[in-house]
Amino acid sequence: MKIYEKILDIAKRRGIFYPSCEIYGGISGFYDYGAIGTRIKKNVEDLIRKAYLVEEYGNFTCSEIECPTLSIDSVWNASGHVKSFSDFTVECMACKEPFRADHLVEENLKISCDGMSAEQLTELIKNNNLKCKKCGGELNDVYNYNLMFRTEIAPGKNKRTGYMRPETAQSTYIAFKRLWEISRKKLPFGILQIGHSYRNEISPRQYIIRLREFTQAEMEFFIDPDDKYEYLNLKDDAAIKIMDKDDKISEISIKESHEQGIIKNKAIAYFLQKSVNLFVRMGINYQKLQLRQHKDSERAFYSKDTWDVEFMSELGRIEIVGVADRGNYDLTQHQNCSGESMEIFWNNKRFVPNVIEVAYGIDRPVYCIVESCYVEEMSKKGDERVYFKFPPEISPYVCVFPLMAKDGLPEKAGEVVDVLKRANLYVFYDKSGSIGRRYARADEIGVSYALTIDYDTLKDNTVTVRFRDTKEQRRVKIDELEKVVK
Amino acid sequence: MKIYEKILDIAKRRGIFYPSCEIYGGISGFYDYGAIGTRIKKNVEDLIRKAYLVEEYGNFTCSEIECPTLSIDSVWNASGHVKSFSDFTVECMACKEPFRADHLVEENLKISCDGMSAEQLTELIKNNNLKCKKCGGELNDVYNYNLMFRTEIAPGKNKRTGYMRPETAQSTYIAFKRLWEISRKKLPFGILQIGHSYRNEISPRQYIIRLREFTQAEMEFFIDPDDKYEYLNLKDDAAIKIMDKDDKISEISIKESHEQGIIKNKAIAYFLQKSVNLFVRMGINYQKLQLRQHKDSERAFYSKDTWDVEFMSELGRIEIVGVADRGNYDLTQHQNCSGESMEIFWNNKRFVPNVIEVAYGIDRPVYCIVESCYVEEMSKKGDERVYFKFPPEISPYVCVFPLMAKDGLPEKAGEVVDVLKRANLYVFYDKSGSIGRRYARADEIGVSYALTIDYDTLKDNTVTVRFRDTKEQRRVKIDELEKVVK
Repeated sequence: MKIYEKILDIAKRRGIFYPSCEIYGGISGFYDYGAIGTRIKKNVEDLIRKAYLVEEYGNFTCSEIECPTLSIDSVWNASGHVKSFSDFTVECMACKEPFRADHLVEENLKISCDGMSAEQLTELIKNNNLKCKKCGGELNDVYNYNLMFRTEIAPGKNKRTGYMRPETAQSTYIAFKRLWEISRKKLPFGILQIGHSYRNEISPRQYIIRLREFTQAEMEFFIDPDDKYEYLNLKDDAAIKIMDKDDKISEISIKESHEQGIIKNKAIAYFLQKSVNLFVRMGINYQKLQLRQHKDSERAFYSKDTWDVEFMSELGRIEIVGVADRGNYDLTQHQNCSGESMEIFWNNKRFVPNVIEVAYGIDRPVYCIVESCYVEEMSKKGDERVYFKFPPEISPYVCVFPLMAKDGLPEKAGEVVDVLKRANLYVFYDKSGSIGRRYARADEIGVSYALTIDYDTLKDNTVTVRFRDTKEQRRVKIDELEKVVK
Repeated sequence: MKIYEKILDIAKRRGIFYPSCEIYGGISGFYDYGAIGTRIKKNVEDLIRKAYLVEEYGNFTCSEIECPTLSIDSVWNASGHVKSFSDFTVECMACKEPFRADHLVEENLKISCDGMSAEQLTELIKNNNLKCKKCGGELNDVYNYNLMFRTEIAPGKNKRTGYMRPETAQSTYIAFKRLWEISRKKLPFGILQIGHSYRNEISPRQYIIRLREFTQAEMEFFIDPDDKYEYLNLKDDAAIKIMDKDDKISEISIKESHEQGIIKNKAIAYFLQKSVNLFVRMGINYQKLQLRQHKDSERAFYSKDTWDVEFMSELGRIEIVGVADRGNYDLTQHQNCSGESMEIFWNNKRFVPNVIEVAYGIDRPVYCIVESCYVEEMSKKGDERVYFKFPPEISPYVCVFPLMAKDGLPEKAGEVVDVLKRANLYVFYDKSGSIGRRYARADEIGVSYALTIDYDTLKDNTVTVRFRDTKEQRRVKIDELEKVVK
C-alpha cells in the first residue's frame, strides 16, 4: 500500500475527509470534512487569519470580510471570467468521455501547451493521431469549456444570470471603494477573505487536491504603485529551492533571493517568506517545499510577476499558495465596466491602487499537513504504531479522559474541560474503554495531548498529561495546564 | 430616522454589512459583511460552535463537519426539495413583477394561507379582484416556483444536474452511516454544520433578514426513538412568552412549560432553553424574545413538533432558531432512494435513528444583536454618544492605542498585542489621531475595551483600560490584562 493510500484509509475511517454523496454514487470533485478534518481545516484557516489580522499589526492593517459566493454576471464579465476562464476540452467520438485537451497533448507529446489555441491543439491531436485514453476511440475537435457554475437568480422579469465565484478576490475588488472608506482612506491595507470557491473542473482528481468546490483564503494587499515596502522586513531564513521563470534553480534563502534580484518585488518576497513560515508552523515538511516563478507564457498578461509555493507530495507537485503582482488591472476593469471610479487621492496623487494578491488554498495545505505528519513507528516489541504528529496549533483537540466513569472523576474532569475551554481549546471528552485504547485512538487522529483524571487528581489537583510523540506522561497541576498545552 | 435606518447607516459606513455588488446596481438578497461585521459574525458562529462541541461534553458528543454546498440532484429528489421546496408566485400581466402569492393574499385579505394550493390562491386573487402592488395591473395565475439554485456539473456525457443546498442538514443525513462509524456506533450524538445555504427567494427583503445566500448553523441530534433524555437537565430559568400551536399564550419559564406539558419533548425544551441562553450571551434583548410552536398546518407532515425562538425586532417578527422533531423521515427517505440501509443496531434493537434538529440562522442573530445593542446617549453637556454595547464575546476586537507613535510606545504596544493574541483575541492597533477620537471610533463599532499604552507603561508595565459602557478608565498590569478583558 502506498503512503497516500494508507492516509486515505485513515482519513475515511476516522473522519478526516471522504467523498461526498457516497450513498448516491458520488460525483468527483466533492469531499466532506469529518469531525477531525473539520477541526484541522478550521485550525489552518485560523492560523492564516491571525497571521494577517493580528500578526501584521505594526506593518499594515488587515481586515477580514465575507461576501456571497454567488453573484451576478456583470462581475464576471468585467473580470474576464465569462470570456476566458475556461479549459480546453476534447471529447471521444466513440465513448463521449471528456478530457483536458492540453493535458492530453502534454502527456502524449511531452511538450508544453502554454499559450496554445483550441485550433492548435486540435491540429496537434489530428497530426499525431492521439486517441481516447479510455477506449482508444477517435477524438473530436477541441473546444473551450467555461469552468464557472452558472445559474439563474430571481423569477420572471427580474431573472439574472449568476455564477458561483471561481475565486474570492473579485468580490473584494468590487467593494473596493467601501473598503477604502472603512480603512480610513489610507494605503496600504489588506483585505482577507476566507470562503468557498467553485470551479467546474473537467477531471477533478487526487482527493482534496483538485476539487470542484474548495476553500480559499485570499488576501488582497492594496498599495500605492510607488510603495517601497520599508515597513516590511525580510527575516533571515534557511535555504529553499527556488526555480525562476527560466527554470534556473537556486538553493538560497528567500531574503538572499530578494537581495540578489531573483524575487525582485519585496512585498512578493515578504509574503512568500511569511507563507513558508506559516506552512512550517502547520506541520508541513520544509524539505519538500519549493518556490516557483510563473513563466511568461503561463502568467496572466496584466500580472507583472507571480510566484507559487509548491509542496512535492507523494501525489506529485501541489501549489499551495500563489503570490501575484496584479498591478491595477482588476480595479481598472471594474471601473471601466461599472462606470464607478476606483481612483483614490493619496500621497498628493490621484490613481487606481495596485494589488499584491496572496492566494492560499485551504484543502491542499490540509492534505500536505496530513501527508507530512504521517508517522509509522515500530516499537522494540515489534508492534506498529501509526500516528499524525500534528503541531498543537493544528491538532484537532485536547483529549480529556476520566480514568473511571465514577467516584467523582467525571465531575473533576469537568473542571479540566472548563479550564481548557477558557483557553479556547477544543476538547474531546471520552470516558469509555481502557486508558491504553483511548490513547491509541487519540494517537491515530494526531491529538497532541491527552489528559487523564485519576484518583490522585481528587487529592492534589494534578492530571496526567500524555505527550503523543514521546508517549511521555507527566503530572501537571490543573492551574498550569493552559501553559503546558499551549 | 427610524432606529433600523440609523443602524443601517452605521452598518454601511463602518463596515458591519452592506449590499453586495453595489457598483453594478446590486441584486436584492445578497449582502457583504465588512471588517466589523465579519468579526461579529464569526464570534456568533464560534459561540454556537463551542456551545455544542465543548459545552455539552458531559451530556453527549457533538462534532462539526463541513460538506460542499453544491450537490447532485439525487440528494434533493430524495429530500423532497425538487418537488416541494417552492413558493407560490404570481406575476403582474402588465409590468411582469413577480410576488409571493400567499403573502399578497394574506396582506390583502388578512387571512392565513397555510396549506392552500396554487389553484385556491389563484381563485382568491380573482374572486377578490386583487391587483399588482406596483402598477395596479391584472395578476396572472399562481404557479409554484422552486427556490433552489440549479446548475450543471461536469461537461459532456458526465453532465449532472446540481443544486446549491437550501439547508445544510441533508449533507449531514446522507453521510449518516459514516458519521455513525466515526462516532463509535453509540447513540446519541450530535453533528453540527455551519455554512452557507441558498434560497432563490422571490422577494428578499429587510437587509440581512431574508437573503438569497445566508449562513446557517444546523445541529442534527441523532437519537434512539425511545430516548428519555435523562442526561439533559433543564435549568431554572426566567419567564418568557410562549405561544403554542393553538395561539394560547403563557408567560412562564421553559422548564415549567416542559413540566406542564406545553413543550412536551424534553430535548426540544432543552435546546430551546440553550438557544435562548445563547442569544442572551450574544447580547440579544431577552425582553424581545418569544417561543412559538408551529401550527399543524405549517408544520411538515413528518415532523412531530416544531418550535421557533423569535425576536420582536423593529422590522417585525424574526425567527432566529427552529427546533424540530423530524422523526426518522429524512434518513428513511435517503434509505429508500439510495438503497443503502440507514439502520443501526443499538440497545438490542435494529432501527433507523430519529433526529432532533436545531437550526440557527447566523445573519438574523447578527442583526438582532446589532439592534439590541444600539445605544443613543446624551451627555450632561448635551453631546450625543452612539455606541453598540456588544458583550465582550461578540465585540469585534480589543483596541490597542500607543499614546504617541514614538518614544518606544509602539514597541511597548507590541508586547500588549502579543499578550492579547496568546489569549486568542483579535486586536485592532491604531496609532493615529487623538486618544479621544480613537475612543469615539472604537465606541461606534462596539469595542468593549480600548487599551492605551503611555509613558507610565514604560515605567510600571500598566496600561489604561477604558471600558466602553461606563467610559471608566482603570490602570491594569499587562500580566493581568487577559483576566480583565476575558
